[in-house]
Amino acid sequence: MRWSQLHIPTLRQDPAGADAVSHRLLLRGGYIRQLMAGHYCLLPLAIRVRAKIIDIIREEMAAAGAQEFLLPTMQPAELWRKSGRWDLIGAEMFRLRDRKDADIALGMTHEEIFTDLAQELRSYRELPQTWYQIQTKFRDEPRVKSGLMRVREFTMKDAYSFDLDAAGLDTSFQRQHDAYHRIFARLGIPAIAVQASSGIMGGSDSVEFMCPTDAGEDIVVHCDCGYAANVEKATSRLEPTQDSEAELAEFDTPDARTIEELARLHGKPAQRQIKTLVYVADDQPVLVLMRGDHALVEQKLIDTLGAADLRPALPGEIVELLGASPGSLGAVGVKHLPVIADEALRGRKDMSTGANRDGVHYSGVDVCRDILIGQWADLREVLAGEPCSLCGQPLRTTKTVEIGHIFKLGTRYTETLGVTVLGPDGERVKPIMGCYGIGVERALAAVVESHHDDAGIVWPLAIAPFHVAIAQLGDAPEVAEAAGALYQALLAQRIEVILDDRSERPGVKFSDIELVGIPFRITVSARGIAAGTVEVTTRATRSTDHLPIADAAAHLVALVNAA
Amino acid sequence: MRWSQLHIPTLRQDPAGADAVSHRLLLRGGYIRQLMAGHYCLLPLAIRVRAKIIDIIREEMAAAGAQEFLLPTMQPAELWRKSGRWDLIGAEMFRLRDRKDADIALGMTHEEIFTDLAQELRSYRELPQTWYQIQTKFRDEPRVKSGLMRVREFTMKDAYSFDLDAAGLDTSFQRQHDAYHRIFARLGIPAIAVQASSGIMGGSDSVEFMCPTDAGEDIVVHCDCGYAANVEKATSRLEPTQDSEAELAEFDTPDARTIEELARLHGKPAQRQIKTLVYVADDQPVLVLMRGDHALVEQKLIDTLGAADLRPALPGEIVELLGASPGSLGAVGVKHLPVIADEALRGRKDMSTGANRDGVHYSGVDVCRDILIGQWADLREVLAGEPCSLCGQPLRTTKTVEIGHIFKLGTRYTETLGVTVLGPDGERVKPIMGCYGIGVERALAAVVESHHDDAGIVWPLAIAPFHVAIAQLGDAPEVAEAAGALYQALLAQRIEVILDDRSERPGVKFSDIELVGIPFRITVSARGIAAGTVEVTTRATRSTDHLPIADAAAHLVALVNAA
Repeated sequence: MRWSQLHIPTLRQDPAGADAVSHRLLLRGGYIRQLMAGHYCLLPLAIRVRAKIIDIIREEMAAAGAQEFLLPTMQPAELWRKSGRWDLIGAEMFRLRDRKDADIALGMTHEEIFTDLAQELRSYRELPQTWYQIQTKFRDEPRVKSGLMRVREFTMKDAYSFDLDAAGLDTSFQRQHDAYHRIFARLGIPAIAVQASSGIMGGSDSVEFMCPTDAGEDIVVHCDCGYAANVEKATSRLEPTQDSEAELAEFDTPDARTIEELARLHGKPAQRQIKTLVYVADDQPVLVLMRGDHALVEQKLIDTLGAADLRPALPGEIVELLGASPGSLGAVGVKHLPVIADEALRGRKDMSTGANRDGVHYSGVDVCRDILIGQWADLREVLAGEPCSLCGQPLRTTKTVEIGHIFKLGTRYTETLGVTVLGPDGERVKPIMGCYGIGVERALAAVVESHHDDAGIVWPLAIAPFHVAIAQLGDAPEVAEAAGALYQALLAQRIEVILDDRSERPGVKFSDIELVGIPFRITVSARGIAAGTVEVTTRATRSTDHLPIADAAAHLVALVNAA
Repeated sequence: MRWSQLHIPTLRQDPAGADAVSHRLLLRGGYIRQLMAGHYCLLPLAIRVRAKIIDIIREEMAAAGAQEFLLPTMQPAELWRKSGRWDLIGAEMFRLRDRKDADIALGMTHEEIFTDLAQELRSYRELPQTWYQIQTKFRDEPRVKSGLMRVREFTMKDAYSFDLDAAGLDTSFQRQHDAYHRIFARLGIPAIAVQASSGIMGGSDSVEFMCPTDAGEDIVVHCDCGYAANVEKATSRLEPTQDSEAELAEFDTPDARTIEELARLHGKPAQRQIKTLVYVADDQPVLVLMRGDHALVEQKLIDTLGAADLRPALPGEIVELLGASPGSLGAVGVKHLPVIADEALRGRKDMSTGANRDGVHYSGVDVCRDILIGQWADLREVLAGEPCSLCGQPLRTTKTVEIGHIFKLGTRYTETLGVTVLGPDGERVKPIMGCYGIGVERALAAVVESHHDDAGIVWPLAIAPFHVAIAQLGDAPEVAEAAGALYQALLAQRIEVILDDRSERPGVKFSDIELVGIPFRITVSARGIAAGTVEVTTRATRSTDHLPIADAAAHLVALVNAA
């Protein structure tokens, strides 16, 4: 392609409001333009990269035995009502009505529809099946941000497996797991596979693939020993504690309304306090107890309770439930509300907590003796430096963005949608499902987050929009002729090459080629031709070699094919 | 691929309600399943065909110098308001509101968004540009039908050109026109290019590409001389007429309320009558005059008036406007309403028409003398057998479905959205646009409409889901071994081959392979192996050759590569 004929609107300046590196560089490089918040136009360079990402995904899906489908974006509300998710999912799902006033969902995921198609599977002999599509998904994100990383409309590869039993699901799940590793390796994304929460998908087990980036909002907790989990799921080893026996006693705390004040003014260290939180889960109030120095991870609470909706109780609700305001809350003697406590409180004695009278606390609390705990659970946020639950070494935390997520779904969808196949012993069996997603444009952005420098993007060769850029400097006929001959020679060898034939200064061409991120640049200049040479510059290292003109094409072919 | 592992749910019986051949065969062949009216799931075989169609479209777009983009499906109402189409387009556009209550259109076409992107074009030196995408479109069709042919959600290749002037547009338009011919030729669709109405796209000129099929609803009028037009646009040569002078006179017609009754009871042949129709165009009433034996084409009236909305007047409105009911309507002496007359009435004398009093008609009407005609226009429906306006030979009519449509748009969108570039003389110039669309799944269905027989689909090799099917008959080890060896040999030669390794009867395999439409079948049987041969059957001719096993792979490779 000739640069002069392509629409590559590069920008000299950093655009306002683009915080994430990938957002900034994709805008500046002329890859994307925003139509409205959360909706981006992909320009020709982005299309080339995206097509290569999709090709890699397709190859690995085929290698994993998955078959490609394409399902409608518009889905009848009826199927979502059957699965129970029409009401379960809130404003995140775009909905509309057609001219006949029928309720329609815009697909944010396709469990219901693929499961409906699975009605046609008749016998266990047809299992396993893994079906996927590459398709536009819609999610009405409350906070779009970071360019392509958090949007309302995006391309997704979503796959769904159907197996006869849990062992079959394990195999299908592992095949997708392995395919994901290969996909991210081929894309050049240093993905970390972590245990994760299954959220609204339900199911027993899920693994997220995370790309480290400062623009990410997900914290991954990991250890050199191999342990890795999303902070929504991560645990750490609790240090052993030794508590003395103590008697329950009240003390006045008119001046202490926070963990920190109780520690400072009354000598009760945070790790010896019980923090009492009041939540409303699916319209039911619940008390949540944490150690004073621990933070609650709300997703863990959601997963523990199996709640569709969770919110902190309002101040008025708290007074009505407990007779006191935050600052003096506690669960001692509470029998009219369910109490769920973090594992770090199990067996603890001589603790302090609020007495449900403003300005009064208890000391000497024995958690098991004095509080009616309905449920124990791991609810606390793991912090960097805590000991790994596997090996005891200090854990590290990293900011990441999710680029893939795979789930074991179980029979939730085949059950609610009534799908069965004939089993080996003549009984009807509900196939057991898994689902597996990758966001295509987010993966593209993640590559940029992982591969850039001060000058711009540094695409891995496998997904670069072009392998080689020829910078044709000046308008001397011998330069145009030599550049054109190189261009044709590379095309003939199936090298993807772009000829920068614009009437621009050398500096503009160099900075555009670096910004856009083409792996190799050949510079053709009058001075070089006089000396019989061209320059070959490698984007990643920014190192330049001088080569005889006659050798340049073969050298580039070797470089591209070796990579 | 092995048939036993693919999801190809063929059906023995014709499904109920599938009238069009393509609908019936794509359902029976396990290519598609309906999710809800107008929304189809594409199954693995359909995905393979669709991908090949898209590849052909991409190759021809690239050859025509078009650059690929991908734009959002969701579009802000604001841009459609600027272009004037938010209100102009009715229920056909799906609309919704997001969580912030913003109006959003689901893209049924993308003139507004591509034009908005063209804001970044700065100079005439960047023109011409032709931009396209392959993307899901949504249209809330009032009557979905015929499987993939008329749906609410489909993949479209839509391209948009930007040129400095009309001569540039002519060139861009012609390049797309030529690309469309090549695309349809490669797909095996016998497309007819016809003059067409531009409808809601606006603009001066448009060409439709039509595929003949009994399932089509568009009538194409064409002639051996090369003339071809959609009936919405077609004309024919008017036979010369010789009318006598006559005086205007009333006569009573209490028994004649139709053209036919006036002819039969009062001796006024239909071709000597004036038919008076009352329409409401954009809320304004208008009288439309046709010769008694001619039918109005409403699209011609819409195009002539430039109306966004057209409907027949209601009986009550007619009485209020003209003082009479249908059956005795006429335009003689009417001055308070605009009158538009078909060209076939120009200069006619001694005609009959209603007198705007129930049961009374006029005879001896001289159209120019007695009626205040505001506008003459070609409004009549051309019928088969009328003389071609170019050569005079009898015209023919064919039922077709539209598979592509290209338009000269002019500056409507660059004007309303305020897009200009710097012109050669330093003035700002509004680029002049064209747009060019192909429906991908409709093209797929059109291929089936054009290529099938009683046994099923007969795919052209270029887009067949597989080139070769190997029917492995019986479960003898030597059969499985020979079939497997052939399968591997063909794969190694990059032949797309499916091995039917199911434990099904030979008849089931043969009929499935024919139904699905694989161009070549190799039959491997125990008897054949005993004789050292396999059978090779060509789907299109259903002819079979016996070949030595050792020659089979090379023979198939030659067959596939020769096609």
